[in-house]
Amino acid sequence: MKESNNLLFDLVLFGGTGDLAMRKLLPSLYQLYRTAAFHSGTSIIAVGRSALSREAFLTKVRDKLEQYLPEGSWDTVSWQQFSKHLQCVSIQANKTESYRELIPLLSEDHRPRTFYFSTHSSLYTAMASSLGALGLITPSARVVLEKPIGRDLGTARNISHQMSNYFTESQIYRIDHYLGKETVQNLLVLRFANPLFESLWNHHYIDHIQITISESIGVEGRGEFYEETGALRDIVQNHLLQLLCILAMEPPATIEPDRIRDEKLKVLFALQPLKGDDISRNVVRGQYTQGVLDTKKCSAYTEEEGVAESSTIETFVAMKILIDNMRWSGVPFYLRTGKRLPNRSCEIVVQFKEIPHWIFDTPRGQLMSNQLVITLQPDESITLRLCGKRLGPGIDVRTIDLNLNPSSRGNKRSADAYERLLLDVIKGDQTLFLRQDELEQAWHWIDPILEDWESSSSPPEYYACGSWGPAGSTLLLAKDGRLWHEGVSG
Amino acid sequence: MKESNNLLFDLVLFGGTGDLAMRKLLPSLYQLYRTAAFHSGTSIIAVGRSALSREAFLTKVRDKLEQYLPEGSWDTVSWQQFSKHLQCVSIQANKTESYRELIPLLSEDHRPRTFYFSTHSSLYTAMASSLGALGLITPSARVVLEKPIGRDLGTARNISHQMSNYFTESQIYRIDHYLGKETVQNLLVLRFANPLFESLWNHHYIDHIQITISESIGVEGRGEFYEETGALRDIVQNHLLQLLCILAMEPPATIEPDRIRDEKLKVLFALQPLKGDDISRNVVRGQYTQGVLDTKKCSAYTEEEGVAESSTIETFVAMKILIDNMRWSGVPFYLRTGKRLPNRSCEIVVQFKEIPHWIFDTPRGQLMSNQLVITLQPDESITLRLCGKRLGPGIDVRTIDLNLNPSSRGNKRSADAYERLLLDVIKGDQTLFLRQDELEQAWHWIDPILEDWESSSSPPEYYACGSWGPAGSTLLLAKDGRLWHEGVSG
Repeated sequence: MKESNNLLFDLVLFGGTGDLAMRKLLPSLYQLYRTAAFHSGTSIIAVGRSALSREAFLTKVRDKLEQYLPEGSWDTVSWQQFSKHLQCVSIQANKTESYRELIPLLSEDHRPRTFYFSTHSSLYTAMASSLGALGLITPSARVVLEKPIGRDLGTARNISHQMSNYFTESQIYRIDHYLGKETVQNLLVLRFANPLFESLWNHHYIDHIQITISESIGVEGRGEFYEETGALRDIVQNHLLQLLCILAMEPPATIEPDRIRDEKLKVLFALQPLKGDDISRNVVRGQYTQGVLDTKKCSAYTEEEGVAESSTIETFVAMKILIDNMRWSGVPFYLRTGKRLPNRSCEIVVQFKEIPHWIFDTPRGQLMSNQLVITLQPDESITLRLCGKRLGPGIDVRTIDLNLNPSSRGNKRSADAYERLLLDVIKGDQTLFLRQDELEQAWHWIDPILEDWESSSSPPEYYACGSWGPAGSTLLLAKDGRLWHEGVSG
Repeated sequence: MKESNNLLFDLVLFGGTGDLAMRKLLPSLYQLYRTAAFHSGTSIIAVGRSALSREAFLTKVRDKLEQYLPEGSWDTVSWQQFSKHLQCVSIQANKTESYRELIPLLSEDHRPRTFYFSTHSSLYTAMASSLGALGLITPSARVVLEKPIGRDLGTARNISHQMSNYFTESQIYRIDHYLGKETVQNLLVLRFANPLFESLWNHHYIDHIQITISESIGVEGRGEFYEETGALRDIVQNHLLQLLCILAMEPPATIEPDRIRDEKLKVLFALQPLKGDDISRNVVRGQYTQGVLDTKKCSAYTEEEGVAESSTIETFVAMKILIDNMRWSGVPFYLRTGKRLPNRSCEIVVQFKEIPHWIFDTPRGQLMSNQLVITLQPDESITLRLCGKRLGPGIDVRTIDLNLNPSSRGNKRSADAYERLLLDVIKGDQTLFLRQDELEQAWHWIDPILEDWESSSSPPEYYACGSWGPAGSTLLLAKDGRLWHEGVSG
C-alpha cells in the first residue's frame, strides 16, 4: 500500500493516561493501526496531569494492551511500529501556558487534528479555551466529548455555549460508544431495508420494548465520581435514551448524519414528560446493599471508598417511558440499568403483540410471541424468535430462534465500538455522534427526575448485590402484566 | 410396548403391484411399521390384476424397498417382521365375484379397514360397487382416492356421485401427497402462529407468489396415460391449486379438518375465472421437443412410446392467476409445471413488496427484497431472506438467508408424505385430504382451459428438453416486469 493511502492524523487524548484511554482508546487505536495502517507522520499524544517519561508511558500502554486486547490481537512487531506514533505530555488543565507543550508535537498541515476530551466534563471549557488561546484550534481541528456531558441541562448548556466559542457544531463529536456497536448499525439496516420489520414497527404490532444495561461490577474505586453522578446521569441520560431513539425513530429521508439526528431528536421531543407523581409511579431508584455475586460476598454501595455512609445516590434505575406520537402511542419502553447485577449485559427485546387468535393444540405460552432480541454485550447478536412446527406427526408448535448477526466475509474481525468511532472522527463522519440539541433535550427530559430525587427525603429502594434490582423493578412491569425478559434475568 | 398400543388396521391396496405402490406406498408402510409398530393382526393386502404368488410378490416388494428406501432405513429383521403383514390377491376390477378373494383376509372387528384406490380413476366406481355388493364396506371402512380423480368436472362429479352411494363423505380420503409434506404443514404454523407473517400476508405487503413443480423425467413409458391426461390435469388441477389454496386461504377459526377445507374452498371460489382471450394471455401451454438434459440427448414428447405423432398434449403449463378477494386483489400467483425441465423441484416463492424508500448507499438490486422461499422437492426447506448489514466499517447492506426448517429433536427422521398421510387415514384425520366440493370447484375452474385447448387448432409452444419451458413462460412474467425465481431457474 502506498504511504499516501495510510491514515494521517494528529490525535490529542486528554485523560490519555486514564482508565478509558488505557482500557479502550489506546487498544482501539492499536487495532485501527493494524487494520488501516498509519502514515509515518501520524501522532497520538496522550495528555496526563502528572509528568511521565515516554518510556514509562509506553511500558504502561504495552501492559494494558496485553491485558485488554482480545486474544490473538497482540503482536510485538505491530506494537513496535504502533508505539512510534505515541507521545505523552503533561498539562495542567487550568494553566493555558502548559498547553504549549503540544505545539511542537502538532503538525501544521491540513491533516485532521482531533482533541479527545476524556476527562471530567467540568474541565472541557478550560481545555477548549486554552487550546483556543494558543491558536491550536485550526479549521481541520475537531473535538470529541466523552459522556456524561454536564450533570443537568444547565451545566450541559453552559458547556455547549463555551464550546461553541471555539468549535463549530460540525467540529464537535459527542461520543456515545453504544452507537458505535456493529449491531446498533445493523439495527438501522434491519429496520429500514426490510419491509418485514418496517411495516410492523409501530403500536399496531409491537407490544413493548425492553432495554437493559447491566453491570456486575460496583463502583470500582470511583466512588467519588459516582457520588456526584449516579446511574441516571451515567447510563440512562445517554446510552439508554440513545438506544431508545435508534429503536423508536421515524425512517429518515436519507442516511446523512443530520437527517438521522433530526429523527432521534424528534423522539426525545415526544417522550412523555415525567413529573410529580408520575416519577414515583414510573421510575424505580435502587441502591445495592451487601450480597453475594458469583459466590463472592460484596459490600454495600455505602461501604465503598469515597461514598458517603448516608448516600442516597442510585446505582439502579428502572423506568417506564411512553412516547407520545402516532407510531408509539401506548407502547411502553421499559429501561433499566444497574451495578452489581448478576451479569454484564446489554440487551434490547422488541416484543411483538400476540397473534390475535390461536388455532393450534400446543398451548401458546408466553414464549410463543414473536420477539427480536438484540444483544450488545457481552457479545453482539440479533435473534428473531418465530414459531414453527416441530418435525414429526401432528402439528406441534415450538419456537425457532433465527440468527440475524452481521456475517463476516472470511475472517473479518468485528471492530470495537471505539475503534469504529475513532475512524469516523478521523474521516469526519458525525452520523453516530450526538448533536447539541439531542444532548440538551435528553437532559431536559431527565432533569425533573433528578430534581425530584434531590428534593426527596425518601431513600432509594435497596437491593442485594447479585439480584436483578429492587422489587419495584419487577413490580413496574408486573403492574402492566409483563415480565422482564428471561434471557437477561434468567 | 404393549401389543394393544400397536397399530391395528386392514389396508387393501388396489393397484398394489403398480408403480406408486412399489415406489411410495409400500416403502411408506414399511417405514410406518418401523416407527409405530404394527399389531400382529394388521393386514396389508395388495390387489393386482394378474395372479402373483405371495413369494413372488414379496420378492418384488423386497427388491423395490431396497431400491427406494432412503439410505439406512433397510434392515433385514424389520423386513422379516413387516413382510408377515403382507398379502397379495388377484382381482378383476370389473368382476364382482373376484372381490370375494378379499373376504377371508379381512377382519370382522372394528379396526379401520382402508381401501386404497391407486388405479386409473375410471375404475373407482366399479371397485366401490363390487365392494359394496359384497358387504365389505363396513362402518369402519374408508377409501383413499388417488389423483387425478376424473378428467373434468363431469367425470369427477360422476365419480363423486357413485362413490356417495357406498361411502359417506367422512369415509372418503382424496389424497394429494403434496399436502402430506412436513413443510406444507409447517407453512400453516408459520402463517397462523406468527404475527410477523400473518400481519403481512396480503396485497399490501406481498408483491406476488410463484409456485413451480418441475420434473426432469419425461413420460417414462406412460405415454398412453399421459396422452389422455397432460400437465394441466396431472399437476395443475390438484397439486398446484392445492398449494395455492394453502398459501392463500384465510385463517381458519379452528384447525379442524372441515374448517381448513372450508377456507381452501373459498380460495377456489375466488379464483378469477379464465375464459376466452384471458386463456391465451394468462396460460402458457408447452410441449417438449428434442434437447439435451444432463448432457444426455432426449427425445421429443411426440417420439415417446404411446404418444401420437401429432399430439398437442401439454407437457408444460405456466399460468398467472388472480384471486378476487379482499386479501389478494391484484397479487398475481404464477404457477408452472413441466416435464423434461432442468431439474426435479417444487418451490414456492413468496415475494414481499420492496421497501418503499431506500436510504442506503448499497444499490438495492432485485435481491434486496424480502422473500420466503419454501422448497418441497428434492429436499424440504424454508428460507426467509432479509437484509442485514455486512460486518465492517460503513453500512453495506447484504442479504441474509434464515433457515426456518422444522428442527428435529435428536435424530428424528422426517416422514415421507405418504407415510404421514397413511397414518392420518388409519387414525381418521381428514385435515390433509380434499373434500368433494374442493375437488369439483378445482375442476370447475380448470374446465374452460381444457375446453379451449381441445377446441383450439393452434399447437402448444415447443421447448427443448433441458430448458425452463417455452419463451411464453418467461414472457408471462416479463409482461408484468417480473422474473421467475432464480433459485429454480438459475
